[in-house]
Amino acid sequence: MDNVQKRVFTNNDFQDVILDRHSIRNFDPSVKIPHDEMVQMIQEATTAPSACNLQAWRFVVVDTDEGKQKLRSYFMKFNLPQINTSSAMVLLFGDTDAYKSYRELWNKAYTNKQITKAKLEEVLHTFLPIYEHASKEMLTADASIDSALAAMQFMLIARGHGYETNPISGYNSENAAATWGLDPNRYVPVMAIAIGRPAPDKQDEVSSVRYPVKQVYEFH
Amino acid sequence: MDNVQKRVFTNNDFQDVILDRHSIRNFDPSVKIPHDEMVQMIQEATTAPSACNLQAWRFVVVDTDEGKQKLRSYFMKFNLPQINTSSAMVLLFGDTDAYKSYRELWNKAYTNKQITKAKLEEVLHTFLPIYEHASKEMLTADASIDSALAAMQFMLIARGHGYETNPISGYNSENAAATWGLDPNRYVPVMAIAIGRPAPDKQDEVSSVRYPVKQVYEFH
Repeated sequence: MDNVQKRVFTNNDFQDVILDRHSIRNFDPSVKIPHDEMVQMIQEATTAPSACNLQAWRFVVVDTDEGKQKLRSYFMKFNLPQINTSSAMVLLFGDTDAYKSYRELWNKAYTNKQITKAKLEEVLHTFLPIYEHASKEMLTADASIDSALAAMQFMLIARGHGYETNPISGYNSENAAATWGLDPNRYVPVMAIAIGRPAPDKQDEVSSVRYPVKQVYEFH
Repeated sequence: MDNVQKRVFTNNDFQDVILDRHSIRNFDPSVKIPHDEMVQMIQEATTAPSACNLQAWRFVVVDTDEGKQKLRSYFMKFNLPQINTSSAMVLLFGDTDAYKSYRELWNKAYTNKQITKAKLEEVLHTFLPIYEHASKEMLTADASIDSALAAMQFMLIARGHGYETNPISGYNSENAAATWGLDPNRYVPVMAIAIGRPAPDKQDEVSSVRYPVKQVYEFH
């Protein structure tokens, strides 16, 4: 992406990054991730595509003791090792109001000469009305899918930066947004991602099982 | 992943793969993707994580004239270039019944000595009941998020194999599952991904705009 300041990844071996990723639950608690690197990773992750480019994702990064105490109030107990030892817990929320920024985004693309006037008109008159008239169910689904795409990129980007992750969905989702002062009618919790460096003395993680691939596809 | 037969990617430069991906809408229609390579890409993509390892994804690969004609019946018109020129359209569906295979999957993990007896008991007595008593809304959300994670991996894996993609959500989702003989009460359409090699004479694609990163995160 043009707007991502590129720098060489610690691990730039794509095959290793994507095929050797697996969840880590015990991290080295002494590792801190600088905020500028975290922001860089978020920026890189949000090169992900999104439905109609709505970018309906929001990242809540929890890396303080106070923040982690709040997580303990609504996460399931078996996720305590990740909360206690990770460098940060990154919470992904879908923004069901993302379409309200749509006009500004596409006008900017036109001003930047990235799209034609015809494309601008098409977008504002074809896509925008779909969202303005969409059900809450559709807005929730789209925001969740957008956020999941960015989440997957974030987990891979983390490996590029030399970190490991664990995606987590075991928490009371009804309390998720409000805990961080976000409007629960607007923001849908999608997942949490623990990030850090693996604990050197806890090498008990193994790759998880997958169904035989022939069970998950068909050709037409 | 242990169960993925590794081979060297055409493009193994992670930085290029993830930061230089952008949507391609006009493909070279003469390019065919062999089925064994497509299956390989699906297998690599499904190293993605999923909620409780449910793997609630299904890939419907459409690469015949007959199949593409069916797509035209429920996709929006502005997606015709991708349907007409891509090597294949890969449709992602979330499987809301995925939890019904859960017991078998985890028993296999235990048999393969990948998890302990204690872990097996925890999974079957803690996670499985959550899904057995889950609302349709939760099953739909989880299956959609799982599928989006695999979809993002598929788009990146495609670049590793030298292909480009375009994720598409512009279609009548009510007709999506039934068109392929899938039970619409069970399978939720998540997105379609056009895949192929870019048309050499249509270099009109540009990276799309992103909001300034400071708009999408907060620290706690």
